[in-house]
Amino acid sequence: MQQALVLAESVLYSTTPNPRVGCLIVRDGLILGQGATQPPGGPHAEVCALRDAAARGHDVAGATVYVTLEPCSHFGRTPPCADTLVQAGVGRVVAAMLDPNPQVAGRGVRRLREAGIPVEIGVCLEQALALNPGFVSRMRDGTPWVWMKIAASLDGRSALENGVSQWITGEAARADGHHWRARSCAILTGIGTVEADNPALTVRHVPTVRQPRRVIVDAQLRLHPDARILNGDDVWVITAAGSPERRAMLEGRGARIVALPDGQGRVDLPALMRWLAQQDINEVHVEAGAGLNGALLGSGCIDELLWYVAPMLVGPGLPAARLAVLDQLSLADRFEWMEHARVGDDLRLRLRHAARWQSLMQGLASIPTQDCAVEGD
Amino acid sequence: MQQALVLAESVLYSTTPNPRVGCLIVRDGLILGQGATQPPGGPHAEVCALRDAAARGHDVAGATVYVTLEPCSHFGRTPPCADTLVQAGVGRVVAAMLDPNPQVAGRGVRRLREAGIPVEIGVCLEQALALNPGFVSRMRDGTPWVWMKIAASLDGRSALENGVSQWITGEAARADGHHWRARSCAILTGIGTVEADNPALTVRHVPTVRQPRRVIVDAQLRLHPDARILNGDDVWVITAAGSPERRAMLEGRGARIVALPDGQGRVDLPALMRWLAQQDINEVHVEAGAGLNGALLGSGCIDELLWYVAPMLVGPGLPAARLAVLDQLSLADRFEWMEHARVGDDLRLRLRHAARWQSLMQGLASIPTQDCAVEGD
Repeated sequence: MQQALVLAESVLYSTTPNPRVGCLIVRDGLILGQGATQPPGGPHAEVCALRDAAARGHDVAGATVYVTLEPCSHFGRTPPCADTLVQAGVGRVVAAMLDPNPQVAGRGVRRLREAGIPVEIGVCLEQALALNPGFVSRMRDGTPWVWMKIAASLDGRSALENGVSQWITGEAARADGHHWRARSCAILTGIGTVEADNPALTVRHVPTVRQPRRVIVDAQLRLHPDARILNGDDVWVITAAGSPERRAMLEGRGARIVALPDGQGRVDLPALMRWLAQQDINEVHVEAGAGLNGALLGSGCIDELLWYVAPMLVGPGLPAARLAVLDQLSLADRFEWMEHARVGDDLRLRLRHAARWQSLMQGLASIPTQDCAVEGD
Repeated sequence: MQQALVLAESVLYSTTPNPRVGCLIVRDGLILGQGATQPPGGPHAEVCALRDAAARGHDVAGATVYVTLEPCSHFGRTPPCADTLVQAGVGRVVAAMLDPNPQVAGRGVRRLREAGIPVEIGVCLEQALALNPGFVSRMRDGTPWVWMKIAASLDGRSALENGVSQWITGEAARADGHHWRARSCAILTGIGTVEADNPALTVRHVPTVRQPRRVIVDAQLRLHPDARILNGDDVWVITAAGSPERRAMLEGRGARIVALPDGQGRVDLPALMRWLAQQDINEVHVEAGAGLNGALLGSGCIDELLWYVAPMLVGPGLPAARLAVLDQLSLADRFEWMEHARVGDDLRLRLRHAARWQSLMQGLASIPTQDCAVEGD
């Protein structure tokens, strides 16, 4: 299964809106075939692995299939993988997790079992979920999985008091951030950042076959038509108001304007997340300023922190996120550690919202596979 | 040498003001004897290892001695180890680093070589220095090695705006902090922390044969005679002013009062560090509030940060250290990473001042061993 997870990870940047899946077909310790999900419209991991086995001249009859997600049971852009595995005559299927897609959701397992193929579920479940938290969240909860990228000093400042922020973290950390942009389906920023830094917010420094959708929260439609972010693929501008003239002008620059007002002149951020999920956005990479960061945290929209720490103390300065004043520590936003690693001269910390993660895990555990028990990780 | 380093580490809390040293005597891959520095007045590591070999019935003639510090060449509280090794007839000595003590400083190596014993220097130098940065700093520069313990949120706050700080980090991190108190020679705090938290600042949760000296920076001698810190071993109170009455009262409570004024009503912190070194203080553990922390950083007195990060965002709050406003990032205090590790629910980050560390390394490299070359690490 570890090798199947590695295969899934190899397509981290290319399968969206489909989940990243890896598949390994094995008999007597010999790998007969392997594969990973191809870009949308292309074959799923199981089919790639079967084709790979055929190309190598291997018969997969009776072999064991290790796959990081339950084989699908529905006709989507491709035929159901569960049927294909049955036809291929495989002997056993081990899947890391069930598919939360309501069109599958245990039916793949049932189809295999009905055909007499034993299926084991839940091996390396947590690692498999970590490859596709956005897909699971979108399918189960109707929201994407959202992480916020921060670059801060050890004392938690993202800029000096005078606004200077280039550069707190080093080149390696900035390049590393592009890996996270690349795996996301959408990069979210605010009009403040666009006005201050005029960023392109594209994936560079990392080879990728696609660019994530760029989304700007711009309540009053202040976006300047010459902003660099309007170059390249079309952007989505989320607004609360804004004149028809400005709307028409930005549409003329290829922007899609979407009004999601919260009734108080701002963008309704939870509604934005639901809307993004409806647009098949699995994972959102937030790269914004203290204002939008604080509003997203304050409205419970952040599932994960991608926090780069530079080994310096800057003293008075601007926070990474503008948060409300607390009078009790028990009210503070708490996360759980996922990772701490050196990246160049800086440290990359990853943390996730424990309750949100547990809810995804429990959602997967609650998918019925009819009369067959689901085994835990 | 790795085993000798482990032996040295085993006496981390007990040798001050002497350095922690480990010694292993080996022949043909067999450990004949091993030892580590005993508390002041007791035998040094080499003597312990020789006695251990004798107790096991081993003859050390021709054996190789691995020792984490150059054997001493002077009569201190104990006779010179270099002579003892010569008399024991050992065949070869491998030492991690030279002894910066001006009474030794290469003379131990020379004595051994003069007796025809080959000596190799510089094996695992950096690890050996990390065991005794304070001893080296005190001997070379006349200052202790000073680390500052911080407990902060991810966004770098040590307390909420209303001052609430109990608890940002968890029980495991707080207990871990006692290991660092235990290895220090002195724990330094400020009158603000004493007044706010009334701490004992003793080593608990960790077995130790000695308590570090507790030192309070109290410019105006505000220390209350009922403060908990005045219980137990005598404390040192560093002041800039203060009436004879208050001085007499605190002396009556066992405090030693030392005036080190900076001429502006505050304590001269660099002078305090020099004075502490004169009192045989090798390592200082700072556990103070934002004011003293900021002043120590601002006056270049901090060599290392021991920074516990809790996985939470608290928003507006008090910084770990009150620093001056910068207008350029290039002016920020920069450190280099030593370690990042999970401690319970928190992360322990250790960082050191790169230039200070390099200066210690270079100081060691510049010790002459006469006509014999010093090998690098």
